[in-house]
Amino acid sequence: MSAGVSTLRTARAEGAATDPAAMTGAEAAAQIARGALSVEELARAALARTDRLEPMVRAFSWLDRDRILRRAREADKPRAGKGPRGGLHGLMLAVKDMIDTADMPTQHNSPLYIDHRPGQDAAVVAICRAEEALIVGKADTHEFASGGRLAASRNPHDLAHTPGGSSSGSGAAIAAGFAHLALGTQTGGSVLRPASFCGIFGMKPTWGTVSQEGAKLYAVSLDTMGWYGRSVGDLALMAQATRAVRRPVKPRKTLRGTRIGLCRTPWWETGSDAMKAATERAAVLLRDAGATVVDFDLPEGFEQLNDMQNKVMRGEGRAAFLADYLRHGTRLHQDFRDRVEDADAIGWEGLRRAQDFCAACRPRFDAAMQGWDALLVPGALGAAPRDLTTTGDPMFQRAWTALHVPCIGLPGFADANGMPLGVQLIGPRHADAELLELAAAAARALGAAAVNPVDPTEPRP
Amino acid sequence: MSAGVSTLRTARAEGAATDPAAMTGAEAAAQIARGALSVEELARAALARTDRLEPMVRAFSWLDRDRILRRAREADKPRAGKGPRGGLHGLMLAVKDMIDTADMPTQHNSPLYIDHRPGQDAAVVAICRAEEALIVGKADTHEFASGGRLAASRNPHDLAHTPGGSSSGSGAAIAAGFAHLALGTQTGGSVLRPASFCGIFGMKPTWGTVSQEGAKLYAVSLDTMGWYGRSVGDLALMAQATRAVRRPVKPRKTLRGTRIGLCRTPWWETGSDAMKAATERAAVLLRDAGATVVDFDLPEGFEQLNDMQNKVMRGEGRAAFLADYLRHGTRLHQDFRDRVEDADAIGWEGLRRAQDFCAACRPRFDAAMQGWDALLVPGALGAAPRDLTTTGDPMFQRAWTALHVPCIGLPGFADANGMPLGVQLIGPRHADAELLELAAAAARALGAAAVNPVDPTEPRP
Repeated sequence: MSAGVSTLRTARAEGAATDPAAMTGAEAAAQIARGALSVEELARAALARTDRLEPMVRAFSWLDRDRILRRAREADKPRAGKGPRGGLHGLMLAVKDMIDTADMPTQHNSPLYIDHRPGQDAAVVAICRAEEALIVGKADTHEFASGGRLAASRNPHDLAHTPGGSSSGSGAAIAAGFAHLALGTQTGGSVLRPASFCGIFGMKPTWGTVSQEGAKLYAVSLDTMGWYGRSVGDLALMAQATRAVRRPVKPRKTLRGTRIGLCRTPWWETGSDAMKAATERAAVLLRDAGATVVDFDLPEGFEQLNDMQNKVMRGEGRAAFLADYLRHGTRLHQDFRDRVEDADAIGWEGLRRAQDFCAACRPRFDAAMQGWDALLVPGALGAAPRDLTTTGDPMFQRAWTALHVPCIGLPGFADANGMPLGVQLIGPRHADAELLELAAAAARALGAAAVNPVDPTEPRP
Repeated sequence: MSAGVSTLRTARAEGAATDPAAMTGAEAAAQIARGALSVEELARAALARTDRLEPMVRAFSWLDRDRILRRAREADKPRAGKGPRGGLHGLMLAVKDMIDTADMPTQHNSPLYIDHRPGQDAAVVAICRAEEALIVGKADTHEFASGGRLAASRNPHDLAHTPGGSSSGSGAAIAAGFAHLALGTQTGGSVLRPASFCGIFGMKPTWGTVSQEGAKLYAVSLDTMGWYGRSVGDLALMAQATRAVRRPVKPRKTLRGTRIGLCRTPWWETGSDAMKAATERAAVLLRDAGATVVDFDLPEGFEQLNDMQNKVMRGEGRAAFLADYLRHGTRLHQDFRDRVEDADAIGWEGLRRAQDFCAACRPRFDAAMQGWDALLVPGALGAAPRDLTTTGDPMFQRAWTALHVPCIGLPGFADANGMPLGVQLIGPRHADAELLELAAAAARALGAAAVNPVDPTEPRP
């Protein structure tokens, strides 16, 4: 490949794993269903990795390994007469630590919420429990998922690099094999950016299809629940469990007959050479696999979407932090006081214009997508920065969040340093099932139908 | 007046109350500030009414009178060196029982949430506590503020009549003088309809200006926090405390120079004769007081807004009840199972069209409001139905909720049976302060700058 872009070293085919520690959630679920693997074995394999690597990776803000084993053993007990197992039975799930859990703290990585214990699960957590996921712990997050204190998590591919954010620990936990599935949230780029940086699969479903109740709200017209896994099958399991999709996902066997727009976006030139090369390479691979891949330009005016998304986020964010502002004053991090005080001077009119602009773009995007199955876009600006004081830039995520459309992050590439480079597939609103079905075939075409967990190496000198 | 419409018997001028039990929140705050009234006296006066009348009115789903007195005495203690009192200091606040309170149950009027205790306050509750409101209890609500089981609350003007809903107990508590202020929510018409039915003042601010965090979410693009009081001054206190307005509210001294559109709306003919007469009478009174009041027609296509709002509400509501659906199955009321299962067959496309339609109308409404200070519209379809199995119809509220605009409900009229008839003032988005300032003068012009609490009478035979 060009510009020093190569295949991601953790990429593999699906169904190839025999080691429980390497299985994707979907692979493990199949093994458990046929009685070839117990939930306890699966949990022990993940816990062994966690025991060994978590001190370096720091994905979790809260973890109780003994409880995980007790629950795993409980999950293996026969359940006479209780009907079929839940869709996430036995799979280990990490929950971003700004989503409430009734039986674990929810600390938001904020000094103001140390050992904070809400008395109830967030809606999505209750849903995952009802589907029998094994919730393993709370994944570290950028403070309140929006600013302030960075997560302590590091990129398992190279610990000197950020895993991205704000869903930092969620991405890291999946990449390192500490859990099969992880919940994140996206208001700007906080699910899909870590997916690209950490070389894993990520999904942001259509806005509004999964309840935000019990998660820290930031900008209500943008906030979207999302998730990670190590294959499209994992993403589909979560999409089905949460009813983001309302029919079974039937992965496409081939890309023949599909029409994919290569959308460099107005921000293409800000991307690194390696990311551009990875995106162009992905287009070639998809075309080789039978898809029609043709250049696609966003409709006129869409180049303003990043700026408009930012205004909506900060403008709606004024309401999000007022309670803590009044309660804690200057103990609240400046970033959040700035939101309350409208330090960016967005103003009400600026907010309205931005909200109305984003809203008007949504039906225009759907119309532009007539005849197209998906867009192929860069996964992020580049590989994860070698810098633990940043989470990177959501330049290639903001617009899709504002458009409310489903996004799937596929791994497969790496730069000259072996750091992951992913791509995104974007669909029209509510075409989440179709997008998953196409993404399954696309992932195979990219040579990364699944990824193995990665063992962190010491940072390069 | 015509059609048997008269002045509401509880209507009065502001500043006229000497009995603490009759004072508005704003009047009481002024008395407390000058040292003429203690918080404990004020609380005892309200509690005396509650002790006597709550068994009939049933506004509360949870109430702890002894705690109220302890907190009132605490509020009267000197606070050397602690800075100015909060904006709601000493005022009694009821909280709709689908908004979380850390120290009181949040039961949603659902059999699935009996004695449910979240471990944290909702954002708006935390804000009101920071502003030193005295939270007196939880106001009964339609189940999950959206369907299922009706609140047990009755209309204090006549106990055989509904107080409206879903903020049933909040409206009843204010009308009966059990609290000075009450929190409600509106996704369809659930703040402003009870305001009209109960002869009190209500406000739904611009969408997104007050956090919904910690309230039951229903349709995220519609859900709006709101409140009640017995004067515009009370509404302004809440608007300032929640920062729905970001500058001090300076009530207009006169309506001269204002331009108000009499907007009968496309639903005018469904209104009762009495409501039509009250609205027309309000137009005359505002004109007599110096406002220019001219007929105003909504832009073309707006007649679809009610239907579109309903589709957005039900379509977005699909995500709202999934957790309880999975956890509780058929123990969850059919209304909520219907939402999850899309029993209305709205579908994703129907939802998108409705969302996009409502969004497109918002800037069009703002443009149409250029040169107008407010619209005058009916308060509700008619007076409160004499029927405790319904909360009435949100026909005259839905559109404004969908448009995200601020709404203020003003009382002042009554039908031939003495049942209240109110009107609404509607402003453009984010003009909440201006709307309050105009509403203060409008309320005076309607002869109802404030209302007294009402003593419930036994139902008419």
